Amino acid sequence: MYEIDLNCDMGESFGSYTLGQDERIIRFITSANIACGFHAGDPAIMRKTVKLALEHDVNIGAHPGFQDLVGFGRRKMELTAKEVHDIVTYQIGALQAFTQAEGGKLNHVKPHGALYNMAAIDPALAEAIAEAVYKINSELILYGLAGSELIRAGERIGIKTANEVFADRTYQHDGTLTSRNEKNALITNEDEAVNQVIQMIKQRKVRTVGGDEISIQADTICIHGDGENASLFAEKINEKLLENNIYIRTIKRR
Amino acid sequence: MYEIDLNCDMGESFGSYTLGQDERIIRFITSANIACGFHAGDPAIMRKTVKLALEHDVNIGAHPGFQDLVGFGRRKMELTAKEVHDIVTYQIGALQAFTQAEGGKLNHVKPHGALYNMAAIDPALAEAIAEAVYKINSELILYGLAGSELIRAGERIGIKTANEVFADRTYQHDGTLTSRNEKNALITNEDEAVNQVIQMIKQRKVRTVGGDEISIQADTICIHGDGENASLFAEKINEKLLENNIYIRTIKRR
Amino acid sequence: MYEIDLNCDMGESFGSYTLGQDERIIRFITSANIACGFHAGDPAIMRKTVKLALEHDVNIGAHPGFQDLVGFGRRKMELTAKEVHDIVTYQIGALQAFTQAEGGKLNHVKPHGALYNMAAIDPALAEAIAEAVYKINSELILYGLAGSELIRAGERIGIKTANEVFADRTYQHDGTLTSRNEKNALITNEDEAVNQVIQMIKQRKVRTVGGDEISIQADTICIHGDGENASLFAEKINEKLLENNIYIRTIKRR
Amino acid sequence: MYEIDLNCDMGESFGSYTLGQDERIIRFITSANIACGFHAGDPAIMRKTVKLALEHDVNIGAHPGFQDLVGFGRRKMELTAKEVHDIVTYQIGALQAFTQAEGGKLNHVKPHGALYNMAAIDPALAEAIAEAVYKINSELILYGLAGSELIRAGERIGIKTANEVFADRTYQHDGTLTSRNEKNALITNEDEAVNQVIQMIKQRKVRTVGGDEISIQADTICIHGDGENASLFAEKINEKLLENNIYIRTIKRR
Repeated sequence: MYEIDLNCDMGESFGSYTLGQDERIIRFITSANIACGFHAGDPAIMRKTVKLALEHDVNIGAHPGFQDLVGFGRRKMELTAKEVHDIVTYQIGALQAFTQAEGGKLNHVKPHGALYNMAAIDPALAEAIAEAVYKINSELILYGLAGSELIRAGERIGIKTANEVFADRTYQHDGTLTSRNEKNALITNEDEAVNQVIQMIKQRKVRTVGGDEISIQADTICIHGDGENASLFAEKINEKLLENNIYIRTIKRR
Repeated sequence: MYEIDLNCDMGESFGSYTLGQDERIIRFITSANIACGFHAGDPAIMRKTVKLALEHDVNIGAHPGFQDLVGFGRRKMELTAKEVHDIVTYQIGALQAFTQAEGGKLNHVKPHGALYNMAAIDPALAEAIAEAVYKINSELILYGLAGSELIRAGERIGIKTANEVFADRTYQHDGTLTSRNEKNALITNEDEAVNQVIQMIKQRKVRTVGGDEISIQADTICIHGDGENASLFAEKINEKLLENNIYIRTIKRR
Repeated sequence: MYEIDLNCDMGESFGSYTLGQDERIIRFITSANIACGFHAGDPAIMRKTVKLALEHDVNIGAHPGFQDLVGFGRRKMELTAKEVHDIVTYQIGALQAFTQAEGGKLNHVKPHGALYNMAAIDPALAEAIAEAVYKINSELILYGLAGSELIRAGERIGIKTANEVFADRTYQHDGTLTSRNEKNALITNEDEAVNQVIQMIKQRKVRTVGGDEISIQADTICIHGDGENASLFAEKINEKLLENNIYIRTIKRR
Repeated sequence: MYEIDLNCDMGESFGSYTLGQDERIIRFITSANIACGFHAGDPAIMRKTVKLALEHDVNIGAHPGFQDLVGFGRRKMELTAKEVHDIVTYQIGALQAFTQAEGGKLNHVKPHGALYNMAAIDPALAEAIAEAVYKINSELILYGLAGSELIRAGERIGIKTANEVFADRTYQHDGTLTSRNEKNALITNEDEAVNQVIQMIKQRKVRTVGGDEISIQADTICIHGDGENASLFAEKINEKLLENNIYIRTIKRR
């Protein structure tokens, strides 16, 4: 029997600005990564999104990012490991309060955007994040790019980790994602995308852009929450996984 | 036997900017209200200030304010009660994470600046704040202006409250502070200031600017952390209280 | 012969967040009020919107607001007149630079949201804004609520003013708009809305919610840029004005 | 006859936070680089600092930086050249409005912190900044690290440039400053620092950390505005330059 978690970034609206289709996507996922006000989200939206996740029995995670609202946390910033540790602590805490207030429980942490990418390859940043998570609550699960430095840092410090894989992104020989600047970065054919995740889950392998196969651990799949077809694809991936006897399950906290 | 808590606003530096004399004042107080990044403070300073408080065995409180860094949270903003509820939840959560991470415990919440003043007289805002505190942790203590709407809201919702009094501010007949725009708002004579708090603690009374005496409950005294003589006055008030058999004690969480 | 200017708030997107239908509405207006980064807008969007206005030969105005992005500048903030003067100067300057850089010319200034409403009734704030405009360039035109304190302040200081009227809002006996909190604040029937502006332009009168008619000066009509039917209504009002021999013309700088 | 401009970063306070000793340093410089609200400064401080410069007949420059107040603009951010172009335009415009309003004239632009350092070595960023300056006003002077990409970009686009040198920093063989992370980055001996600038001005040479001499063009010296001895050193460098027949003069706009 195979199991997989489906996660999606949520609560990325801000003030009068709306982004994403949270109400529609929530039905097709098991874990919500909720923005914490630095790259997106605000206190009102955090509360609303936490409630939405609780209503749909979806696991709640903090989704901390760089303090760069205009850049949506997608621009690299040269912070020290200590600074990263502190902004992650701050943001996890803010979201945790909303889960406490609404009678829920924080389940996991997944860094956002440039912070996610930098932590995938920089051991010092990865450790800073893993340590921040560990110190707040050692039962929290750390989500990171499958096989990345962030996963290794979580394992070293002794917290549960979740290897994240992507349906619609291509992989390099070293297990990193092909940069969005490259033209073959995205898998636009939906069937190919679905097949990629099924292979990753069942065979623990993925075919790279170079044509070779590499090992990969898939604990959770990243579902995109914006774009016109986001919820349609989310629904489709649900169906296809079930057809292939892959059960969609949350990852349980220790 | 008389007891009183001495609290001070702390952690109000920001990035490269330094404000206050936290390291000196901390020795003379029992409770620190730590800024949460909206009106002052940043993640690095929050961590540092939480550690400072823990080292000196000083109780830690969250000090949430309006999101108005340039105005230091001192300018009224017309937020709905719901918006106030959410920004307070967010900020308490952020600070709580640092106390968790550093092995401490959050003890209390005291709103800052314009939010403090508005919550003292507006029952809806007061209730929004009390409810936010209650929902995160019903054992937290709510600090507010003695006898104000904020104290009443805390009592109604069933959380412990601390009536805050001021040594160096004059009082109106209705128990509110004289506005800083009035010339008789401040008590600049230190002995007078000390005597005012001793009277408030021992006789539960304060003489107003109009000359009459009104009842007042004094659970905690606000000590100012900036100004040239801040730490000298903090030291003096410690001495004078002890001379008058008033014991300086933290307020214990339920 | 009757003439009227049609203005619309523009450039209110922010970073990854999109708001409004600037590309569609721009065809139906003569003046664009461009957000300056405090309540909405960012440098990239300001440049883009200035270029859009220039391409369509639409007059460019600065649209300064309170520094409250999450509240979209719609929440009252208690700033001093001096603070208002300075934030308005700052924002006009920022937008002016983009018009200079793109080979255009700044034409007018219209305060946004809560700042607009507060300046309509508070003579000190109104004067602070008028003075800021005057000191940067005494040829700029100040847009404000028809007959309001802001218009009076502009006249006193000696700058050209534009009395703004609303098609879809109802009026009180004193010439102010009915608060959005009242149920009869909006005119939802499009023909009624169109007729109201035609009456304002031709007869210089408007019927209030109380049923009486008051005098009103209409130099410019506010066209809304968001909402499903925004561009349809903008098109309709263009047609109806022309049918009634009202020419749609920009207001020329001195 | 030798001439040199002395410039200093100013207006870096923010809200309730004070930084630098602008009132004291202003007497010893000829050019003030005024923060524009992104890395430091706010509208009220910009106006105040512009007035201070005008009172002392000191040239006014815009000092734009990354939008990273908590990091004081010192942390690298990965912005596109277009984004840099736009944030520089915005900030120059904001400061220009204050000079217009106070009856002064903007003279120059000097990027701040990480933006300054990145523009010194990245031709695309350098060009984006030079173009932003040029498009607002082709008579403005662009300040940059002596001999850097920023100076070259300014020359290419056809604006006047000012090669900036440092009294208290050591130089590498390629003309860049020794990184502050290296222990020999700073010249702490004041006489050595003074002698370095005299040699740079008179002989157009500087001795590098490797011991060799390289050519350098010195149009303006950076005077630091913070630190205990800032104004004393500023005064000393004034005296020593005059003793060496080096006249302290502003750089005139074309």
